Amino acid sequence: MIKRKKTKAIKIGKLKIGGDFPIAIQSMTNTKTSDIEKTVKQIKRLEEAGCEIIRVGVPDLNSAKAIGKIKKQINIPLVADIHFSAALAIEAINQGIDKLRINPGNFPKQELAKIAALCKKNKIPIRVGINSGSLEKDILGKNKFVTPEMMVKSAIRNVRLMEKMGFYDMVVSLKAPDVLRTVKAYEMLSEKIDYPLHLGVTEAGGEFSGTIKTAMALGSLLLKGIGDTVRVSLTSDPVEEIRVAWEILKSLDLRQRGVKIVSCPTCARTSIDVIGLSKKIEELTVGIKKPTKVAIMGCVVNGLGEGREADLAIVGEGGNIALIIKKGKIINKIAKEKEFEIFKKELKKII
Amino acid sequence: MIKRKKTKAIKIGKLKIGGDFPIAIQSMTNTKTSDIEKTVKQIKRLEEAGCEIIRVGVPDLNSAKAIGKIKKQINIPLVADIHFSAALAIEAINQGIDKLRINPGNFPKQELAKIAALCKKNKIPIRVGINSGSLEKDILGKNKFVTPEMMVKSAIRNVRLMEKMGFYDMVVSLKAPDVLRTVKAYEMLSEKIDYPLHLGVTEAGGEFSGTIKTAMALGSLLLKGIGDTVRVSLTSDPVEEIRVAWEILKSLDLRQRGVKIVSCPTCARTSIDVIGLSKKIEELTVGIKKPTKVAIMGCVVNGLGEGREADLAIVGEGGNIALIIKKGKIINKIAKEKEFEIFKKELKKII
Repeated sequence: MIKRKKTKAIKIGKLKIGGDFPIAIQSMTNTKTSDIEKTVKQIKRLEEAGCEIIRVGVPDLNSAKAIGKIKKQINIPLVADIHFSAALAIEAINQGIDKLRINPGNFPKQELAKIAALCKKNKIPIRVGINSGSLEKDILGKNKFVTPEMMVKSAIRNVRLMEKMGFYDMVVSLKAPDVLRTVKAYEMLSEKIDYPLHLGVTEAGGEFSGTIKTAMALGSLLLKGIGDTVRVSLTSDPVEEIRVAWEILKSLDLRQRGVKIVSCPTCARTSIDVIGLSKKIEELTVGIKKPTKVAIMGCVVNGLGEGREADLAIVGEGGNIALIIKKGKIINKIAKEKEFEIFKKELKKII
Repeated sequence: MIKRKKTKAIKIGKLKIGGDFPIAIQSMTNTKTSDIEKTVKQIKRLEEAGCEIIRVGVPDLNSAKAIGKIKKQINIPLVADIHFSAALAIEAINQGIDKLRINPGNFPKQELAKIAALCKKNKIPIRVGINSGSLEKDILGKNKFVTPEMMVKSAIRNVRLMEKMGFYDMVVSLKAPDVLRTVKAYEMLSEKIDYPLHLGVTEAGGEFSGTIKTAMALGSLLLKGIGDTVRVSLTSDPVEEIRVAWEILKSLDLRQRGVKIVSCPTCARTSIDVIGLSKKIEELTVGIKKPTKVAIMGCVVNGLGEGREADLAIVGEGGNIALIIKKGKIINKIAKEKEFEIFKKELKKII
């Protein structure tokens, strides 16, 4: 079991993060926020996939003004991502936004004070979102490459700035586009502050490389107990981000949802169609919400051991025979042609 | 930069692993090994994808006898995966195998001694492959679940057994089907021995969940300097395993190969078609072997920073304008319709 680092709990709409609250999964829409219909439609799809906090970009006044209407049609907390313009932040607050994501250094101090006061009055938390791609020029200096130390310096500076204004209702993020800097920066920051941390690798790339980079960085941090909310950034449909995020948290036993499948990579010993079965069983189990562990193993070398730890397993015994193992006991020896049918029946009994 | 834990260097055919040698990427065929034609064809595809060591299952004598003929037709070291039968191991050695993977506890001691003596004489290293699904019964006892401590106990026992026979030419692996046990087991083992470690999550599942689990476990271990060779186990075409393994090592700057793409997840601020462009650029750059960093960013918020760190970047400036940034300098401001064409030209100049 992972022992999570203790952070301050904060409230985003009805949802709490940090403290002992579950690690929350978030995403960001890629529609024009001012297109309320499209934006709401995308958020609904994200909710269905398991998204728990949703962020929208607010680059203009029409987007800010859309927030109230969007909020009414969705069920999860709404976060506004705002850069440079205090007027947009203030409009978002007036529209009833649940959280702001800003980089405080991007606002003149007087305007920032106004935003902080309004958020405090309305109990709206702020994410201080540091990003290696938009670091303050005085911290970067004449360097070409941003270091984790620079990112942490920027985060601490911005957190202290908010605290001086009497604002403490914060989440902090520190994103870089690569694994090494992301992991190092969060590790250093988590030693220095106890605000909840929002984890992510920024600009991670498309589904393939973005998933791998994010799984490595978040995996490494979460295993150390660091992280209270996560976003997987993919150049793709944001629904895919939610799938990946759930898989990451499930694989670490940090959250439970649906079916976990263990299946062998197949080799010369494989006596059943593991690849085909896995695909069929994956399709069969989409949408099942009860946490269930299933194993599909080509032979008995490791198959019996995996079968013992699963709720339900199919294991090739050699020749034409497949074993069905339920809660550690072999309940059936069948011809392999019938394995999927029998498996389906047994799965129904379990869930 | 990751500081790798120092391990003993060993030789597998012409390839060296451990010590300061590059972390090697391996896979396993899923053809019948006795089907020489199919097996060689698959190995050739794997070599082309970047596979550096290939393992074949040897469940019967025909498979063992195929080894010599397979070896002649391939360019990378060949490893035989053998369980229970000393006769198969001996035939594999006689056929000129480059390495054996066994679980020593699976063989009667006298026969194991024979294998060890033959391997020593022929300078064939052995991987002691511990797997949570096939742990010794006396270590498991009456427990249902295998712990990392049990796995390490099994590994140490088997390593010592080989050492007592005067055999020291070893690699060790400790695979479990989940991230937590895998990471914990390797961490503990790497404190106790200095043989090179072969990393992997066993039975990790299909492409989606297997990639995520493996990236998390290997990412966490590699970041700590643990690991000398890796295998990604996927219930899928083994070529996919090689793609994932390379992406993992590339993302940690442990190996270099081809193009690294940074691309933003797009949001309401995006003014160019980042998703479409990313796909086109990914296709364009497949097969390029020169290490090159490319960024595709929807807006200037983080785009200028990412552009600075990339060899070549496209960044949406807003409106109809895209910036082309080369080695940190804006070299072109163009209408976004022309961005791909200009990008392609500039990429050709770089590579």
